Amino acid sequence: MVKAVAVDVEGDACVVRKSSEGNRLYSKGCYGIKEKEYLLNLVETCYLIEKGRVEARRKGKKINLEKFMEYALEYIPDFEIKYLVYRDLRERGYIVRMQEGGESFLLYERGKRPPAKPAFQVRAISERATFRIADIEKNIEDAENKLILGVVDEEGDITYYIAKFFRMKGEMEERDYEGKIILLNDRCITKDEGLREKLREDFVGREIGEYTQLSLMEAAYLVEKGVKVTRRGRKMSMERFIKHARKIQPDIERRLLVYKEMRKMKLLPKTGFKFGSHFRVYEENPEKSHAPYLVHVVDSSHESTWAEVSRAVRLAHSVKKEMIFAMVGGDKTKYIRLRRITP
Amino acid sequence: MVKAVAVDVEGDACVVRKSSEGNRLYSKGCYGIKEKEYLLNLVETCYLIEKGRVEARRKGKKINLEKFMEYALEYIPDFEIKYLVYRDLRERGYIVRMQEGGESFLLYERGKRPPAKPAFQVRAISERATFRIADIEKNIEDAENKLILGVVDEEGDITYYIAKFFRMKGEMEERDYEGKIILLNDRCITKDEGLREKLREDFVGREIGEYTQLSLMEAAYLVEKGVKVTRRGRKMSMERFIKHARKIQPDIERRLLVYKEMRKMKLLPKTGFKFGSHFRVYEENPEKSHAPYLVHVVDSSHESTWAEVSRAVRLAHSVKKEMIFAMVGGDKTKYIRLRRITP
Repeated sequence: MVKAVAVDVEGDACVVRKSSEGNRLYSKGCYGIKEKEYLLNLVETCYLIEKGRVEARRKGKKINLEKFMEYALEYIPDFEIKYLVYRDLRERGYIVRMQEGGESFLLYERGKRPPAKPAFQVRAISERATFRIADIEKNIEDAENKLILGVVDEEGDITYYIAKFFRMKGEMEERDYEGKIILLNDRCITKDEGLREKLREDFVGREIGEYTQLSLMEAAYLVEKGVKVTRRGRKMSMERFIKHARKIQPDIERRLLVYKEMRKMKLLPKTGFKFGSHFRVYEENPEKSHAPYLVHVVDSSHESTWAEVSRAVRLAHSVKKEMIFAMVGGDKTKYIRLRRITP
Repeated sequence: MVKAVAVDVEGDACVVRKSSEGNRLYSKGCYGIKEKEYLLNLVETCYLIEKGRVEARRKGKKINLEKFMEYALEYIPDFEIKYLVYRDLRERGYIVRMQEGGESFLLYERGKRPPAKPAFQVRAISERATFRIADIEKNIEDAENKLILGVVDEEGDITYYIAKFFRMKGEMEERDYEGKIILLNDRCITKDEGLREKLREDFVGREIGEYTQLSLMEAAYLVEKGVKVTRRGRKMSMERFIKHARKIQPDIERRLLVYKEMRKMKLLPKTGFKFGSHFRVYEENPEKSHAPYLVHVVDSSHESTWAEVSRAVRLAHSVKKEMIFAMVGGDKTKYIRLRRITP
């Protein structure tokens, strides 16, 4: 066994005493940086202490793993979280470096190391942190590489997600409609045979016996496309229809915006209720293919828990779908895909 | 084809004109009740109009299906929801009756009808309704039969759940522990070999290299069982430990209560984070069997959306687990199982 390398803990850096040993740590495992001396950061040092490859001293006194962790927490409040992610990736055999500023890690492709470019930027996140969609969006925008989120659960297990902007595209052509529908309260119906025929061809609405039933969402779309809607025998404008719908489903306009955008992308959105999302989305004829996407519409102030997100993505994958958050509120809708991966 | 039965719509009841026809509707399909005359309720009538078996008149004028639905909405605000559930169960070939008061339906076992006892009480719920755990509990308590919740999504598809109080029981004996653990910030670690050995046998904590890591939950349990906890070299009382933990995980006491109860039931709870729930729960050795339950701890004021619940139950089933809500806050914890069924 190699003799442990002696380092001196000073503030949030650890100085390698012998330059030759620092050099070896860097050349062999890509640990540390060379300034005047070889310096290890707290996360690296902790890992090397755990592995028995470094012996750390502070003010001349040896400091063991537990004490070192307690010490590191004073400099990095979420040290435990960062350490677990760093450690896990190292144990999987990757070269991982702390990014300047310490906010995230740079992860290299297997077998690669600097000066090669890192393939991923990895953020370590506690399961107890709030999931803010705007943060995710910013993280994706800021990352120079692909973004991975490593979410650490209370028992130290890590779930990794790749987060990225995502483009969907389908083959379901849009067209105009005419005819009449009736608004009941929280849904519409129609017995208009001409319209029903078109709806059937386009997989819009649901046939219930002798009539076709439409969700408020579908109905709103049809009304914009030229269909007339009445309630208790009286015609309704689009404005009045939306006003009514908003009482029943307060976020109808946000959802409708995304519904219409997806229709423009030639996609067919249907309710995703059974999967706990707003839409399941088809690229082509739903009788011939399954829906490859679940789309959840949120505004840019949306917050949730990581447990919810974990559940959403896991369920999506269990039914072979991608989980996509459609974030509205900026100048254009951002479609953000979260996919669980095993590094 | 049988000639449609003439009924007169009067308020929220529909009077069958000819007693002999009312009699036949009742004896053949179990529709209506006999008072002075045979009366159908609005849901039954709507279904029979749709099937072409009833022709309804109001003030002498014929009223078609759409008009009838609009009319019924004036008496039953969630008529669309109730009707879809009633219709779906009828279409599946069951005898369904509206319960007195109209709050729910009575569902008979296949092939059974009154005077047999109904097997289930079915509540029709809109996906847009708020999921309140206290309501579910009350519904279970009030139901004279097994309770089914029929949740109607915006497109009219129905997901059925059986809701019931549930008892779990395992084979994992509890025991006391001694030894020392160190609180870092959001987790504990120990290098105490005697303790680590016991924890390993009991599948508590997680081995990370040369130490064992414990979640705050597990640590709190161990501290109550006799383990000493220190932070930065100073001993901590159970009270101080919980005070610290509460800052990191505000609902720790509620979760701990349920954790301890489950341990008393000889179950082994571990984090359910990957499934979006608080605990996955084992009945026996986790190396030999999978966790049959997901347990989510909520207080009695807990509210959520049905979409979330739909997702939670669906995910649980996709990994062959039962979804259980542990409702704390009353004199004792209520364990409520929601299981998706196809009637």
